[in-house]
Amino acid sequence: MLQHLLTTNELKVDEIYQILSDAHNFKKGMEWHPEGKIFAANLFFEPSTRTKSSFEVAEKRLGLDVIHFEVLTSSVQKGETLYDTVKTLESIGVKTVVIRHDQDRYFDELVGKVNIPIINGGDGCGHHPTQSLLDLMTIHQEFGQFAGLKIAIIGDIRHSRVARSNADVLTRLGAEVIFSGPEDWFDSRSADMSKYRPIDQAVQEADVVMLLRVQHERHQQKSSFTANEYHKQYGLTLEREKMMKQDSIIMHPAPVNRNVEIADSLVECKRSRIFKQMENGVYVRMAAIKRSIESLEGGNQYETTYSERVLHSI
Amino acid sequence: MLQHLLTTNELKVDEIYQILSDAHNFKKGMEWHPEGKIFAANLFFEPSTRTKSSFEVAEKRLGLDVIHFEVLTSSVQKGETLYDTVKTLESIGVKTVVIRHDQDRYFDELVGKVNIPIINGGDGCGHHPTQSLLDLMTIHQEFGQFAGLKIAIIGDIRHSRVARSNADVLTRLGAEVIFSGPEDWFDSRSADMSKYRPIDQAVQEADVVMLLRVQHERHQQKSSFTANEYHKQYGLTLEREKMMKQDSIIMHPAPVNRNVEIADSLVECKRSRIFKQMENGVYVRMAAIKRSIESLEGGNQYETTYSERVLHSI
Amino acid sequence: MLQHLLTTNELKVDEIYQILSDAHNFKKGMEWHPEGKIFAANLFFEPSTRTKSSFEVAEKRLGLDVIHFEVLTSSVQKGETLYDTVKTLESIGVKTVVIRHDQDRYFDELVGKVNIPIINGGDGCGHHPTQSLLDLMTIHQEFGQFAGLKIAIIGDIRHSRVARSNADVLTRLGAEVIFSGPEDWFDSRSADMSKYRPIDQAVQEADVVMLLRVQHERHQQKSSFTANEYHKQYGLTLEREKMMKQDSIIMHPAPVNRNVEIADSLVECKRSRIFKQMENGVYVRMAAIKRSIESLEGGNQYETTYSERVLHSI
Repeated sequence: MLQHLLTTNELKVDEIYQILSDAHNFKKGMEWHPEGKIFAANLFFEPSTRTKSSFEVAEKRLGLDVIHFEVLTSSVQKGETLYDTVKTLESIGVKTVVIRHDQDRYFDELVGKVNIPIINGGDGCGHHPTQSLLDLMTIHQEFGQFAGLKIAIIGDIRHSRVARSNADVLTRLGAEVIFSGPEDWFDSRSADMSKYRPIDQAVQEADVVMLLRVQHERHQQKSSFTANEYHKQYGLTLEREKMMKQDSIIMHPAPVNRNVEIADSLVECKRSRIFKQMENGVYVRMAAIKRSIESLEGGNQYETTYSERVLHSI
Repeated sequence: MLQHLLTTNELKVDEIYQILSDAHNFKKGMEWHPEGKIFAANLFFEPSTRTKSSFEVAEKRLGLDVIHFEVLTSSVQKGETLYDTVKTLESIGVKTVVIRHDQDRYFDELVGKVNIPIINGGDGCGHHPTQSLLDLMTIHQEFGQFAGLKIAIIGDIRHSRVARSNADVLTRLGAEVIFSGPEDWFDSRSADMSKYRPIDQAVQEADVVMLLRVQHERHQQKSSFTANEYHKQYGLTLEREKMMKQDSIIMHPAPVNRNVEIADSLVECKRSRIFKQMENGVYVRMAAIKRSIESLEGGNQYETTYSERVLHSI
Repeated sequence: MLQHLLTTNELKVDEIYQILSDAHNFKKGMEWHPEGKIFAANLFFEPSTRTKSSFEVAEKRLGLDVIHFEVLTSSVQKGETLYDTVKTLESIGVKTVVIRHDQDRYFDELVGKVNIPIINGGDGCGHHPTQSLLDLMTIHQEFGQFAGLKIAIIGDIRHSRVARSNADVLTRLGAEVIFSGPEDWFDSRSADMSKYRPIDQAVQEADVVMLLRVQHERHQQKSSFTANEYHKQYGLTLEREKMMKQDSIIMHPAPVNRNVEIADSLVECKRSRIFKQMENGVYVRMAAIKRSIESLEGGNQYETTYSERVLHSI
C-alpha cells in the first residue's frame, strides 16, 4: 500500500518512532539508496526556501533524480488542475511527489487516484507533517523522551500549520502542550482554552518554548499589533529568555521575523535550536521519502522493528 | 552533420521509423548513454509542464546533466537575443538545447550558425515534432501500422502545432486523415476542406479520435463558443464516445480542458491513450536526443538499419 | 580559513596566478573532485544567463550537487534576510554558495558569521571577481603576460562592476589601463582622469579593447544618447576596428547590445574573444570553487606553488 505522508494526525505512534529512528540513523551516517534511477518532483505552489531546498537535499542524498518544477512556468498557468499535473508527472515516470499548496487538504483529490506516494510539504493553514516530525526529532534529541515534558506553543495558532499538527502529536506522545499569544488569535478549532497561559507563565513553565511565525501574508485584515507591540506583549524578549528554566530550549519553524517573535540576538543563542531544526529537517525528510519509496517497491525491506526503546538505545 | 529536430515535415520516412524504433527499444529497457559528461539545456519561453518535464526525464535517463534555465530570471530579461542566448550556452559547454518559443520558426535564425543540435519543443503555432512522434508511437503501438488507418483530428486546427505536423506525417506514412471541429477555425493553410467531416461522422469513422486542445491563450478575439457549447457541438461527449468503432482509441496532446474537448469521465476511460501518450513522450524524446548527440560525436555508431519491418519484428 | 571570493582587490597576485593556473589546467583536462556528496547553491537576486549557467556547469563538472534556488519562489518573498537565507542553506548541508545581489558589498553582513565559503557572482555596481578572472585568463592566454600590455576599457565605467575590478587588478599585474567613453559617465570614484583618452586614440593604442555593456537597467535618468548616437560616438564601429593594432583583441563581458557597444558583425570577428571569454568563465569558476571547497576541508591539498613562471611553463 502506498505510504503517503499527509498529516501527523494519521500517523500511528509506531510509525512516528520509525520515521524518527530512520532520521536519527541518517544523521549518524546510515546509507540507503533505492535501486535504479528514481525520479522525484517537488511541487511548491507557495514560496519556500527551507522546505523546498531541504527536500531537494534529502532527495539527492538518497540518490534520487529531482525533476525541476516551477509553478510560474508550468501548465498550471494554462489552468491545469493539480490532479492532471500529478498524473502527468506519474506518466512520465516520477515516483514520488512533494507538494505544498495553499488549499487545505488539497491531497483529498489525489489520494486513491494517483499511483505514486504524496508527501505533504504543507497545505493551507492545515498540516505540515515533516515540520512536525523535525520538531519531534529536535525535542527527542534534546530530552531523550516526550513524556513529562511541557511544551509551550506561542503565537499565531490560528494560522499555523505547525501548531495544530504539533499540539496533537506531542500530546499523543505523552508531552503536555500549553499555548500562549494573542487571545484573539485563538479559537475552539485551534486550541483548548484551558491550556492557554499568559506569556510570562508559559515561558517560565516550559521545557520547550516553541515560537510560531507571525504569518503577515495570511492575516486578512490589518493586524491590530505593530511588530514592536507584538514583540513586547507576546515575543521572546531578552527579559523573558532570562525567566526560562535552566535546560529549556527555544524552537521556531522559521523564517523568523527578528525582533517580532524573538529578539534578534536570541536567534542563535545557546538555548536556540532553530538552525538545528533545519538540519534535522533533512534527515526527517530522507526518512519520509525512504518510507514512501519502500511502499512503492512493495514492502519495507527494512526488518528492524522500531520502538521508543530502540530509538533510545541507538 | 548536426541532426537538429525542427519539424516532422523534414524528417524522411526512414528517419521517423528510426526514431520510433529507438523509442520502442528504450521502452523495452535499452540502455544508451553518451560518453563523458554531456550538458543539455531546456529553454522554454512559454509555460509547459509535460513537455519540459518529459525532456528533463529523458535527458536524465540518458545520463545527461541538465543545466537549469528559467526565462524569467535569465538575461533574456535584459533584451538578449535568442541567438546570443544559445551561443552563450554553446560557449559554456552545453551540447544540446531544447527550445520552445512563441515565434514561428524561431530556429531559422539559429540553424547553420550554432554548432550544437537544436530540438524543437514547439514553435508558435507551427511545429511540435516530438509531440507528433509520440502520437505516431502511440498509434503504431496500438495498430502495428499506419496504412489503412483513419485518423480524425478534431478541434482547433488553426492554432494547433500538433494538427499541422500530424496531418502531414500521418498521410506520408499511409494513413488517411480527416478533420472536424468549428468550420470557422479552418483555413486553406491548415487543412484540405474535402477532408472535413461533421463531428458525428468523424467520430464514427475514425480508428483514432485525436482531439486538440482549445488554446484559449492564443485566440485573439473572444471565442464565439462557451465551453459548454463547444463541448456539445464539437467535443467528445459521452454519447459520441458510444458511436466510436470497437477498437478505436482516443488521443489528446494535453493539457485537457475537461468537459470541453472531452467529457471528464472519458479522460481515463478504456479507449483513452492520453496518459499513455505522455509516457511514450519520454521514450520518443530519448530517441530524439540520442540522434542529436550521435550527430555531434561524428556519426551514428548504431548499425542497425531501421524499417517498418524491423520495428514490427521487435 | 574559509576562502571566500569577494573582490579581486583583496586577492594577492600569487592567489590570482594560482586561480589562473588551476583554470588553465581544467581547460587542459585536469580532473579534480571533492570527496563525497557536496552541495552548492546559486543565489541570483538579479537576472543572469551566463554567470549563473556558467557556475552551474562548473559545479557539475566538479561533481557537486546543485541545489535549486529561485528568488521569485523563495522565502525571500516573505521578507527573509540574506543572512537567514544563507544560514538556512548552511544548516541543510550546502557547502558553498554563489551569490549575485543588487546591493553593494552585500557580503559584509555574511563574512565572519556564516561557516561556508561565499563566491561573489556580482554585487550592485561593485565587484564581479570571476568576470575579472576570466578576463585575465583570456588576456593571458592571448599574450602570455600582462606586463607591457595596454588595455582600453571603454564605456559605462560608473555602472560597471567589471571596469572597477579589472582596472585595479590589471594595473597590479603590470598592464597599463586607459579609459574611454562618455565623459559624463566618469567620476573620481571610478577612474583616474589622466588615463582618459578620446575613443579613436584608445582604440588605436590598445592591445585589448575591452568594451563595457551599456547598463540600461541601471541608468536612473533617461540616457542622453540614443543607441545609434552611442554607437557612433563611443562604440566599436566597423571603421574603428580597422584602426586597431594588428594583434589586438576585442573583449566584452556580455550580454552585448549589438550595434551599440559594438557593430553586429564584429561580435564574432577574428579579433573577438567574446565567446572565448564565456568558455574561460567555466574554468575560472571551477578554479574558484575548488579553492573554496579546499578551504572547507581544512587546507589546500594541492602542493604546487603557483607563479607566473609556472603558468607559463604549462
